[in-house]
Amino acid sequence: MATATHRDAVRTRKALLDGAARAITRHGAAVSLDAVAREAGVSKGGLLHHFRSKDALLAGMVEEWMARFDAAVQRHLDPGDLRPGRLCRAHIRATFDDDVDLDDEVWRDPAVITALLGVPEVLRQAREFDLRSRRQLSADGLHPQRVELIVGALDGLVMRQLFGNPPDAAERAALATLLLALTERSDPLVAI
Amino acid sequence: MATATHRDAVRTRKALLDGAARAITRHGAAVSLDAVAREAGVSKGGLLHHFRSKDALLAGMVEEWMARFDAAVQRHLDPGDLRPGRLCRAHIRATFDDDVDLDDEVWRDPAVITALLGVPEVLRQAREFDLRSRRQLSADGLHPQRVELIVGALDGLVMRQLFGNPPDAAERAALATLLLALTERSDPLVAI
Repeated sequence: MATATHRDAVRTRKALLDGAARAITRHGAAVSLDAVAREAGVSKGGLLHHFRSKDALLAGMVEEWMARFDAAVQRHLDPGDLRPGRLCRAHIRATFDDDVDLDDEVWRDPAVITALLGVPEVLRQAREFDLRSRRQLSADGLHPQRVELIVGALDGLVMRQLFGNPPDAAERAALATLLLALTERSDPLVAI
Repeated sequence: MATATHRDAVRTRKALLDGAARAITRHGAAVSLDAVAREAGVSKGGLLHHFRSKDALLAGMVEEWMARFDAAVQRHLDPGDLRPGRLCRAHIRATFDDDVDLDDEVWRDPAVITALLGVPEVLRQAREFDLRSRRQLSADGLHPQRVELIVGALDGLVMRQLFGNPPDAAERAALATLLLALTERSDPLVAI
C-alpha cells in the first residue's frame, strides 16, 4: 500500500513536471530550474531531490509523455477486435488522440523538441521507444509493407511537428483514416 | 563571367563548409569558430567575412546540403520517363543516393542534427524545404494517398536517423523498392 510519504512524493513529482511544462511554454527550453521550482510551487531543494539536473527534469518530462502515450494505446485497444493489426489500430488512434498531448503547447514547439533531443538521456529514451514500437507493430500480423508505411507516416508526423509544419485538422483526419484503412487487410500492398 | 576574386570567394566558402563538417565530426556541434577556421586553413577574419556567426555557418552547411539534394533529384530525373510519379521517383532515388550525404558523418550524428535544428534560421530553411517538397511531390500526378505515404516514409527515415536508429543496408534497399513500387500506379491504394 502506498504510504502518505510516497503519495506526497508522487504528487510533488507531478507538480514539478507540470510546472516545467508551463515554465518552458512561457520562457522557452532554456528556462532555469529556479523558474521551474517557482512555477511548481516547490522549493529548489525539493526540485533537486526529484530531479538532480535540468537534463534529468527534461528526461522526466519525456518519460511522462511516453507513459501517457502507452496508456492511450491501452485505452484504444478494442477488446472485441482480434484481427491482425489490432495493436497498429490502437497505436494510430493514440497518435491522433489529442488528449495525449494534453494542452501542452510544449510538445508542439520545435525549439522545445530540439532542446529535448539534445539531451543524451532523452535521445536514448526516444531511440528505445522507437525501437520498441517498431518491434511491437511488426509482430501485429500485418504485411511488413503495411507496417513500414504506417510507422513511417507516424514518424513523418513527428518530423512535421519538429519542422513547425504540422498538418491541419482536415489533413490529420485524412491521414488517420488512411492509416487505419491500411490495417484492414494484411496482404502486400504492391507486388515487388 | 566569374572573376578570379569571385572564384576565390566560392573556393574559400567551400573550404569553410568542408572544414566545418570535419571539425564538427571531430569535436561535436559545439565546436568553436576558431577550430573551424583552423580546420579549413582560413583566417578567423576570412571565416567571419563569409559567415558572420556560428549560426550563419550552420545555416550555410544546411543550405549546401539542400543544394546537393536538389542536384541529386535533377540527376535522377529520367528524361525518358514521362509517366505520373516521375518526380517522386527521382526524389526517392536521391534520398537513397549515398552520394548526397557524401562521407559526411556529420549528417548521421543525432547530436549534430538537433544542434542544427536548434538554430532558428536552419529550422526556417528545413520548414521551407519540407513545404516545397510536399508541394512538388503532390503535383506529380500520383494519388494523394500514395504521395502522403511516400513523403511520410521519407520523413520517417530522417526521424530514424535523428533517433540514431537508421535502417541497415537491407532495410534501406527494401524501403526504396517499396516506395518506388508505390509510384508505379496512380490509383488509390485503399478504398476509403
